Amino acid sequence: MDFNEYRKRGKEMVDYIADYLENIRSRRVFPDVKPGYMRNLVPDAAPMEGEHWEDIFKDIERVIMPGITHWQSPYMHAYFPALNSFPSLLGDMLANGIGCLGFTWASSPACTELETIVMDWLGKMIGLPSVFLHSNQQTMGGGVLQTTASNATFVSLLAARSEAIRRYKSSLGLEDAEINARLVAYCSDQAHSSVEKATLIGLVQLRLLESDDNLSLRGEILQEAVDRDREQGLIPFFVCATLGTTGACAFDNLKELGEICDSEGLWMHIDAAYAGTAFICPEYRKYMEGIEHAQTFAFNPSKWMMVHFDCTAMWVKNSGALHRTFNVDPLYLKHENSGAAIDYMHWQIPLSRRFRALKLWFVLRSFGVEGIQKHVREGVRLAKVFENMIRKDKRFEIPAERILGMVVFRLAGENDLTELLLKRLNHSGKVHMVPAALKGKYVIRFTVTSQYTTHSDIERDWKVIQDYASKVLADEMSEEEEDEEIIPVKEPNKVTPKYRPRMGSLRRKDFGMSLILSNVPFSPKFINGSFAALFDNSNVIVEFAKELSSGNFNGHSLRLSPRRRIKLRDASKQQSLDCAPLSPRHSSLRFKQGSLDSKIDDILETSSFESDSQTNNPNSDIGEDDLDDNETDPDSSPRKQKVVISLQPSMILQSNGNRENGSKSVNGVHLICENCGRSFED
Amino acid sequence: MDFNEYRKRGKEMVDYIADYLENIRSRRVFPDVKPGYMRNLVPDAAPMEGEHWEDIFKDIERVIMPGITHWQSPYMHAYFPALNSFPSLLGDMLANGIGCLGFTWASSPACTELETIVMDWLGKMIGLPSVFLHSNQQTMGGGVLQTTASNATFVSLLAARSEAIRRYKSSLGLEDAEINARLVAYCSDQAHSSVEKATLIGLVQLRLLESDDNLSLRGEILQEAVDRDREQGLIPFFVCATLGTTGACAFDNLKELGEICDSEGLWMHIDAAYAGTAFICPEYRKYMEGIEHAQTFAFNPSKWMMVHFDCTAMWVKNSGALHRTFNVDPLYLKHENSGAAIDYMHWQIPLSRRFRALKLWFVLRSFGVEGIQKHVREGVRLAKVFENMIRKDKRFEIPAERILGMVVFRLAGENDLTELLLKRLNHSGKVHMVPAALKGKYVIRFTVTSQYTTHSDIERDWKVIQDYASKVLADEMSEEEEDEEIIPVKEPNKVTPKYRPRMGSLRRKDFGMSLILSNVPFSPKFINGSFAALFDNSNVIVEFAKELSSGNFNGHSLRLSPRRRIKLRDASKQQSLDCAPLSPRHSSLRFKQGSLDSKIDDILETSSFESDSQTNNPNSDIGEDDLDDNETDPDSSPRKQKVVISLQPSMILQSNGNRENGSKSVNGVHLICENCGRSFED
Repeated sequence: MDFNEYRKRGKEMVDYIADYLENIRSRRVFPDVKPGYMRNLVPDAAPMEGEHWEDIFKDIERVIMPGITHWQSPYMHAYFPALNSFPSLLGDMLANGIGCLGFTWASSPACTELETIVMDWLGKMIGLPSVFLHSNQQTMGGGVLQTTASNATFVSLLAARSEAIRRYKSSLGLEDAEINARLVAYCSDQAHSSVEKATLIGLVQLRLLESDDNLSLRGEILQEAVDRDREQGLIPFFVCATLGTTGACAFDNLKELGEICDSEGLWMHIDAAYAGTAFICPEYRKYMEGIEHAQTFAFNPSKWMMVHFDCTAMWVKNSGALHRTFNVDPLYLKHENSGAAIDYMHWQIPLSRRFRALKLWFVLRSFGVEGIQKHVREGVRLAKVFENMIRKDKRFEIPAERILGMVVFRLAGENDLTELLLKRLNHSGKVHMVPAALKGKYVIRFTVTSQYTTHSDIERDWKVIQDYASKVLADEMSEEEEDEEIIPVKEPNKVTPKYRPRMGSLRRKDFGMSLILSNVPFSPKFINGSFAALFDNSNVIVEFAKELSSGNFNGHSLRLSPRRRIKLRDASKQQSLDCAPLSPRHSSLRFKQGSLDSKIDDILETSSFESDSQTNNPNSDIGEDDLDDNETDPDSSPRKQKVVISLQPSMILQSNGNRENGSKSVNGVHLICENCGRSFED
Repeated sequence: MDFNEYRKRGKEMVDYIADYLENIRSRRVFPDVKPGYMRNLVPDAAPMEGEHWEDIFKDIERVIMPGITHWQSPYMHAYFPALNSFPSLLGDMLANGIGCLGFTWASSPACTELETIVMDWLGKMIGLPSVFLHSNQQTMGGGVLQTTASNATFVSLLAARSEAIRRYKSSLGLEDAEINARLVAYCSDQAHSSVEKATLIGLVQLRLLESDDNLSLRGEILQEAVDRDREQGLIPFFVCATLGTTGACAFDNLKELGEICDSEGLWMHIDAAYAGTAFICPEYRKYMEGIEHAQTFAFNPSKWMMVHFDCTAMWVKNSGALHRTFNVDPLYLKHENSGAAIDYMHWQIPLSRRFRALKLWFVLRSFGVEGIQKHVREGVRLAKVFENMIRKDKRFEIPAERILGMVVFRLAGENDLTELLLKRLNHSGKVHMVPAALKGKYVIRFTVTSQYTTHSDIERDWKVIQDYASKVLADEMSEEEEDEEIIPVKEPNKVTPKYRPRMGSLRRKDFGMSLILSNVPFSPKFINGSFAALFDNSNVIVEFAKELSSGNFNGHSLRLSPRRRIKLRDASKQQSLDCAPLSPRHSSLRFKQGSLDSKIDDILETSSFESDSQTNNPNSDIGEDDLDDNETDPDSSPRKQKVVISLQPSMILQSNGNRENGSKSVNGVHLICENCGRSFED
């Protein structure tokens, strides 16, 4: 493609994007595809000769668009907003056209200098204390653009870790690794899963502390936990406070937490990924009270602020702590123009970085402070409108306070009703939302995302939700009657069941799977399973179990190991959604795997009635018949043999080359070779 | 900005970018600005009201372009290429317009599925063994796009670490932290600094092993190191092999290393960041021999392959190892369309990710395999052309074999001559290159970057280099005569110097600073100092020292602590460039700080002649006069008092709120308050 063709194609693409965004309401917000859909649409190897642009361009609608979740659609209410805007698009077009890297000042001075300037602008816009600004010559504070809030949390935790190791090395006379093994981090049970991930990588312990009735982490709980850990010889070092939690946009109490962090010598990081943008409006800054206690603060202009992903704004009080994290004995050489000659490679994990400040600069200038305030306030107003609509319909309830542009709601009654509603809504492609679990309640999160969302969009979405709710409730009624009528409990050879599940629940045997999408620590740790969150009555879990039990993987016969099976069958369905946080009173486990996992365990059996003795028989062979989906065909045999599936991961020994050809670990499920009996554990 | 204005402005931006790239030769490739240049060009706060696009657009030329290092210019020969191309720009325009996130399959199925498909395409294009492909149903292998090669290395190291901990936990009966403390990683002394950074964050030890005469890491050296570490009770676990090193594009011997990794149970990662693209041409695949031993392999389409940054292609043999790294007890749920329903959030550190597969797809289709092969071969051909030009000029030498599109060269003779040449070339803005240190030799790296580079560009660049070389050599001659003539050695009160520096060297007292740009483990760990690498005769170091010694920071009197001063003054200048690797015979230090640091130490003294007893006097006050820049004014007093500056970092205790107002740690230099005498160490 030469310069002239680029001029032509680039302009066509601008029009395509404008058309796409202008007419986005005409598309299903959530796609109607199943895993693997694309494989049939494209060749399995790159072309040898270059193709004409026309052919490539045509494939956008043929191959790509059918599989897109339209995050810019006004009907998108899932996750948090991840907005773009025209000034942002133009800024990134330019940045990509220039194509410079900005790891050091020297690698492209404008890249670094603009970043320091706009980070100061942005810091002032949200009312950050000046200790966090580059222009404050009294401190080593300043802002930096990270790729994601996850990375900001991780960088902050690493800096806190290196400072803690540094401090305790001399005072306790311990080695780095010994100190590291004693370090304890804290966050609320409402924190984002990235905190958990950061502690996993950082090899430090994490306490998920119980939030209060408003889903807010309070000082008293933190103090108790810190005291207990100190008694046990552990070293509290890091607190991640959240402003605007993933589940319900709740706010931790910074003031209380911050004072404890000060007195206990803990490093406080604030994750305000979504809510941070709102602080541009002074009326929301009350939630930032106590920020002066923080060492680092981060929010995502890539969410609500219309600077398209990736763009995470992070400020640090003492950049020296970052430098020491990523260097051994760094030598400082700072020019008299303090903050101007920063080498940002020392503020982040990777070396190279994009020129992201451009899109941020364009957005700040094009909208102005007032323009962004207006956008935020409109989003909040529309969320209020939606909230008021819900409150007028008595079939629904709102189990957590709405503060910003997100409303959580549910159908009154059992959790699985709300999940069924959500799955059907998502399946319709008319609206898209994801769930959360709040203190045992399954809720649907409704976030106002697009800057083009109107009052009538909200009315339309609410109408869609109401209509589907009516259908779900009607179906539920008829199903219950049906169940009572035609499915007798025939279990002559079984012990008396501890409880008898409602058939309606059994039919939704993948209940809870949609929580895979909720990105909080207590969501199930499914790998490659997000598709399962979306399909209503898809039986994907049962299909998966069938596949596993068919005894033929890649031509090899195998059977499944029943070991390590989680035994939480006594828990009621309702309890299994109750993600009880690790109370500070409890063990020193890194963290408690959410009891939702036990739900999966339930799901993977076609019956929950068998005795434990049967369950534990490792030699029980599993035939394909055992997995017949009895529930979906009420006329089939009521025989309900157990399917014991241990979903433990298993590894093929990688490093010694001794892998045997006759046996395999497939899909991470522990396998035993039928031929040789070899168990694939290392 | 509404839809119509975006259509207009977007098209203007397409033309601006086309104009920029088409006429890029008319710009200085390296900018003529000093740190802080932008502060005077923009306001210090964001505007309250939105600005007109015309005003924003005008500022591109007024504010941004003067500070850009033009990475797309044919005159850019620094670092490695970081190319864009029109199909790549179009792909990212579209991705940004769509604005979806791809952390799970469900978050936007097309995003995940296209990535699995193009990663298979790309893997086949470079001849990767099929165990690394998604389409291979026999393995859990597959490809993923990471943001950078640094991140790929880090992710690989983390996966290796979690597998090692898992394996040794049962066999050795140790705790995670104990195992972690014993883990040892290995790479060549030519490896990229990101390996060092990864081990720092991962809290594992790193051995930088000596490369052979061809700058290649060999099996024997690795085996020796592993044996020695095992003898000491340590646990070797990870080898990062490099294909195409940063310094000279050398290749480690994969076959030898891989066999040892197999027999010793080590995880081998291959960093082919730059060279990976070349493997699209079969004639270069010989350097990949042994790749079957690797667990992970990564290269950057964002370098030579014209997919603009960020885009790092990484393949893994067993994705289960990644999953276990980023999860506690993950549960696997893989759809029958293996590899199609991947949740890539478990393959990387952050949660969210951009739709980067689009730009990669567009490039692969628009160029085709043959188009990219042609581009690679042309880059190599032009590098050969340049190499042949150098070989005809006897003033130059080429100290390392040229294999791909990069040539390293130097002026025959002392290192500082070549550095002076490089600084002057960079200062001219006519070409841009960065240095490296290879076995004690300072070299200039010349990489062919742009796809628009022509034979006549290379001729022009070589002419520029020759002309500057002539000037440098002529100046050097006259200076040497001058030195002999007018600067007598007058040191009556000093002990006999161990060596007498040449005055030419003294004048270039910041010799070696440019190596800050070289991004290898042995480059000096300067923070915020990359600007110092660029200015010829700028005296920035001396200015820095003056600033430190002026005794007045932010209104507070202070003096500098001489503690922890590095004592390597006995080393000769030449030796101090010789980045002797940590021989396997040596200590268990994490790694040896390159002796270049001692060079900085030299630089920071205006004389190297004083006795050690003087050096170690902690009470020696430093007055501003002591820092007079004697060398630049040969007529000034020959008095050369020592300036003792300890460049150790120091921290303000952050967490307990006890910070005293009267004293500060500034620029990370350790300070003592003149008022209270308090030393700011924690």
